[in-house]
Amino acid sequence: MLYLIGLGLGDAKDITVKGLEVVRRCSRVYLEAYTSVLTVGKEALEEFYGRNLILADREEVEQKADHILKDADVSDVAFLVVGDPFGATTHSDLILRATKLGIPYHVIHNASIMSAVGCCGLQLYKFGETVSIVFWTDTWRPESFFDRVKKNRQNGMHTLCLLDIKVKEQSLENLIKGRKIYEPPRYMTVNQAAQQLLEVVQNQRARGEEPAVSEDTLCVGLARVGAEDQKVAAGTLQQMCSVDLGGPLHSLIITGGSLHPLETEMLSLFPVPERQSGSQSAERLCT
Amino acid sequence: MLYLIGLGLGDAKDITVKGLEVVRRCSRVYLEAYTSVLTVGKEALEEFYGRNLILADREEVEQKADHILKDADVSDVAFLVVGDPFGATTHSDLILRATKLGIPYHVIHNASIMSAVGCCGLQLYKFGETVSIVFWTDTWRPESFFDRVKKNRQNGMHTLCLLDIKVKEQSLENLIKGRKIYEPPRYMTVNQAAQQLLEVVQNQRARGEEPAVSEDTLCVGLARVGAEDQKVAAGTLQQMCSVDLGGPLHSLIITGGSLHPLETEMLSLFPVPERQSGSQSAERLCT
Repeated sequence: MLYLIGLGLGDAKDITVKGLEVVRRCSRVYLEAYTSVLTVGKEALEEFYGRNLILADREEVEQKADHILKDADVSDVAFLVVGDPFGATTHSDLILRATKLGIPYHVIHNASIMSAVGCCGLQLYKFGETVSIVFWTDTWRPESFFDRVKKNRQNGMHTLCLLDIKVKEQSLENLIKGRKIYEPPRYMTVNQAAQQLLEVVQNQRARGEEPAVSEDTLCVGLARVGAEDQKVAAGTLQQMCSVDLGGPLHSLIITGGSLHPLETEMLSLFPVPERQSGSQSAERLCT
Repeated sequence: MLYLIGLGLGDAKDITVKGLEVVRRCSRVYLEAYTSVLTVGKEALEEFYGRNLILADREEVEQKADHILKDADVSDVAFLVVGDPFGATTHSDLILRATKLGIPYHVIHNASIMSAVGCCGLQLYKFGETVSIVFWTDTWRPESFFDRVKKNRQNGMHTLCLLDIKVKEQSLENLIKGRKIYEPPRYMTVNQAAQQLLEVVQNQRARGEEPAVSEDTLCVGLARVGAEDQKVAAGTLQQMCSVDLGGPLHSLIITGGSLHPLETEMLSLFPVPERQSGSQSAERLCT
């Protein structure tokens, strides 16, 4: 049996009791390590689960899935995913491969960022299409996600923006030279996402278009949702450029315009903290 | 401290390890018992958690929240919610009351139907506004939710339909006479939801309107998502009128039109089972 097990969003103890029982009895346990991250590392999970974990990077899962599925028809193999196995990322491909090999599978769900963002008080049923915001480079600055934000706002829907994660990336030089040297992981902050968004706004204005959001659009920045040191701050998109939410992972919500009174009241619990000295320079970047 | 703890979607063991630790040490533990249901009852939860649970019905939570929050400033009180505390239903109101009383709160997230429906293979980021379908009565047959399905489909988005639950309802007679006698709980099936949807379609056609869905619209029926005996069936809305998915809870997805090839391939894993004798009469109801 192939078990896809969600780990939830915080630390080692956010696994379900059912999930933990399965992890402890499987013959091999893989940890998917490229679409999300907990607040604790592999070693802390291994210690709590009492099991060695095999890190599965994107290449392993997408191109060497047969390693993961080996003998899963006669023994139990677990594939651990931060959040829910079908949350922000679907692992449909692994399931389809297993099914073709006649390997049964079982999913053990857990909290996903897709629903846990409800903790800020915005009502989940009023979220429209989710968008991903990727790190821009000098030569690649996609703006297409902005159309979906616009459509959501036209329909009065909130937009959850999932922010880019770069894990096990090679520099162009190392890639060309075939050197398996990887850059340190990078996680997009709410500040970076807001700055990119405001650049799109400015580009649209320069082209004479009417942008769907402005500096004053009400947004919610979230960091480490579900963890003990979770941070949430509701403020304008301009404020999101400089708010200090600490370490990864971050997510950003662009509200859909009119709010239910209960949403407004909940958001008031999460004011943007008073600006600290030094953060002004960050804000200047995006004006 | 007030703890809002998600129980996930299956049975007693779907609580997280962190959640279980908190439940075992709280001075009082409430179980929210009107917006969702697990496949096991209160007694099974009490046995596994090793704690007595206090059932909190809608009246208790909405009108007597002070009972729940009593002494939560000096002791720990847990409020258990099937799924995630901010999933299909938000318990913002309880949090706002706690905050006004100076009581700190902490949320322990878990799987929610809002994200676990991803198990059928449809991509979560492509879901639009979620709708609720309520039991129609002879005199109250609201069709307004249908506009939101239409908007979602116009934007190529899937629609998750949450189906009505009637718990602790009084008959009109008992209500008038002030007798606290309650009807047996009712949970809307995918069949009932599909039949109501097709009635809306027929009404719209009779008025000369062009309905956003038809008998042939691809839908997904889901039952007991996350439980051992979960059932998923992908087929036409017409087929949803008669597919046998077993006991509660049910959910229905109306797909948004064009699917990603991976979505199509995943849905092919969940064909509608061959019709059994006896189910034809159910289908006849909705044609």
